[in-house]
Amino acid sequence: MFNFVIMKRKAVYFDNAASTPLDREVLQVMEHCQWEVYGNPSSVHEHGRKARVELEQSRRTIAGIMNVSPSEVFFTSGGTEANNAILWGCALDGRIRNFITSPLEHPAVLRPLELICREKGMGLHYVKNGNTGHVDLEHLSLLLGKYPDALVSLMHANNETGNLIPVKAVAELCREHGALFHSDTVQTIGKFETNIQKLGFDYAVASAHKFHGPKGAGFMVIKGGREFSPIIRGGGQERNMRAGTENVYGIAGMAKALEISAGRIEKDMEHISGLKSELIRLLYENIDGVQFNGDAEGSSLYTILNITLPARVDPEMLLPALDIEGYSVSTGSACSSGSNKGSHVLEALGRSGTEASLRVSFSRYNTIDEARGLAGVLKKLCTG
Amino acid sequence: MFNFVIMKRKAVYFDNAASTPLDREVLQVMEHCQWEVYGNPSSVHEHGRKARVELEQSRRTIAGIMNVSPSEVFFTSGGTEANNAILWGCALDGRIRNFITSPLEHPAVLRPLELICREKGMGLHYVKNGNTGHVDLEHLSLLLGKYPDALVSLMHANNETGNLIPVKAVAELCREHGALFHSDTVQTIGKFETNIQKLGFDYAVASAHKFHGPKGAGFMVIKGGREFSPIIRGGGQERNMRAGTENVYGIAGMAKALEISAGRIEKDMEHISGLKSELIRLLYENIDGVQFNGDAEGSSLYTILNITLPARVDPEMLLPALDIEGYSVSTGSACSSGSNKGSHVLEALGRSGTEASLRVSFSRYNTIDEARGLAGVLKKLCTG
Repeated sequence: MFNFVIMKRKAVYFDNAASTPLDREVLQVMEHCQWEVYGNPSSVHEHGRKARVELEQSRRTIAGIMNVSPSEVFFTSGGTEANNAILWGCALDGRIRNFITSPLEHPAVLRPLELICREKGMGLHYVKNGNTGHVDLEHLSLLLGKYPDALVSLMHANNETGNLIPVKAVAELCREHGALFHSDTVQTIGKFETNIQKLGFDYAVASAHKFHGPKGAGFMVIKGGREFSPIIRGGGQERNMRAGTENVYGIAGMAKALEISAGRIEKDMEHISGLKSELIRLLYENIDGVQFNGDAEGSSLYTILNITLPARVDPEMLLPALDIEGYSVSTGSACSSGSNKGSHVLEALGRSGTEASLRVSFSRYNTIDEARGLAGVLKKLCTG
Repeated sequence: MFNFVIMKRKAVYFDNAASTPLDREVLQVMEHCQWEVYGNPSSVHEHGRKARVELEQSRRTIAGIMNVSPSEVFFTSGGTEANNAILWGCALDGRIRNFITSPLEHPAVLRPLELICREKGMGLHYVKNGNTGHVDLEHLSLLLGKYPDALVSLMHANNETGNLIPVKAVAELCREHGALFHSDTVQTIGKFETNIQKLGFDYAVASAHKFHGPKGAGFMVIKGGREFSPIIRGGGQERNMRAGTENVYGIAGMAKALEISAGRIEKDMEHISGLKSELIRLLYENIDGVQFNGDAEGSSLYTILNITLPARVDPEMLLPALDIEGYSVSTGSACSSGSNKGSHVLEALGRSGTEASLRVSFSRYNTIDEARGLAGVLKKLCTG
């Protein structure tokens, strides 16, 4: 008798900008809460107080790491909701009359801005980007001169290319003109030492599942009590800024995930930057005509690498081929991968959309062997 | 040497309309997902597909129980967001010009309606209620005759009194006039055999943590492809109706919780109705002048009982006293318990707001002894 054992290799996960695996310690915190803490944090009895304690302890942990006051942290269901809430909130208040953004922003900023400006008759202005996708500061200054009553929305790190904006320079320009500065910081929180105070954001947002926390939990930082008109209304939760029973377990897990990530940022940065450099090196060495989108080797987030392969690679076959080889990567943002359109980011960077491009995004769980394995498979796809 | 063992009695939980404990089977489903299913359901690779399967299987389970098509179920972060999304969606579309609602609705309906009508210049009309809090159908008919281009928003069961609306009569009136019918069904889903098709809702909403599922997950049912303009925008999730990465574990837990609840509704209804009847009986027997708000012994949800105690009970001391005695109950909705205002529902029913009132809300985990214990404590508070 023979025993057949079919070995199923687990696919290597290189799509951490889309979502990350939960940290085991985060899972433990969540399991405890899910079983023990079932009261509604708005209830004033023993069960409610227990949930309230979890909630406020999480807020304090997060505020401490962000270097803001707990009163400046508001929980949401994630980054998309937080972006929508901030943009709507500022528009409903009537404090601003114009928005300045970039064509490279995430749809969670571009789509609400289009709706808001249509509904409220507000101006929507796009700042130019150079070839590598960096924001044109002179043009931004020009726009701010024209529209000082604006909210500027520019993401900290681009989710497709990893490009970083010069945060302090943008914040300084906004301050000079009296404009507000919102940044979609979903890709950077938990990956940089995010000192909101020092960086100069008026509004920042986070999504727990981007830093080994749970899906369904996020937060917004609203500096200096710039309270605004909430978009989700109902009960008095989150000091009237976001109605709806709080996702207590998700929030407790998020606080733990941020605490863990913040405590090991330097170590992770070194490890992950090493993976990215090694992949760049191997691809340059082995694939003639490979290109990296954005400012991959310059001012770029260490967790993201956006690659365009030579023309001989069929763009339609790239992801399926990598999937079969056991590598989970994406072409661009997961949020738009359901649609057949090319990436609006790569298009804005001058790509035609007919090239075979992919985004590799790393986490602390990836290894150098996985990066080398991917390089090998990409080489094979380009020569095979 | 003595060993002192301090026995801490666990408080009895009678605030299930605010939130419910997780079912252990639900927790198991969530734990599995939290550890194993970390891909983004919008990603097309192996990890993404695994998450997508969980998501769509959950949608099918829920749709089956609601007797709707899976394409009519959209996931949200909870009931409040779902109510906001539906009301905004209908207003943004321009399909309707008026809203008809009741002063007894949850703030998650009243607050967004106030904002929407202010922003969009739409009409907001309140249907009258009788003394027991039931909707005045003649007045509703009159309003619909005047404003046929309306959306009617009336909650299935009131969250404070448990009062049920005559759903089919309201749905019939709406249909006759060509109006749309939205119902905040947060308190009834998982507690009635909620056949959306048969009841005649155009829009219904659910919140998982009200039926032993997790906080942070909910859904909206949108009948017959009445697609609308989404309020949270960004990626193409939920077929462009609700942007943001889906809370996969929460959604899987919600589907499991609904499945369990749906499978034991009759059993639970019998058990819980028994608790409610027994509490009513004991309070009538032992407390002179006790009153039940709404239509407690008539058309009322079996899980909720709203009580007003005689004038000699200090309303300020009622909840703290019950808390000390080990009973977690609330005065009204948890969502507004942070504020010092009296209940807008009891006020609309003619209460002055200076009486000592409490809401007792049951679940399948409560026992007859707990109900009797509460009756005893209330008796003591009224005589002591």
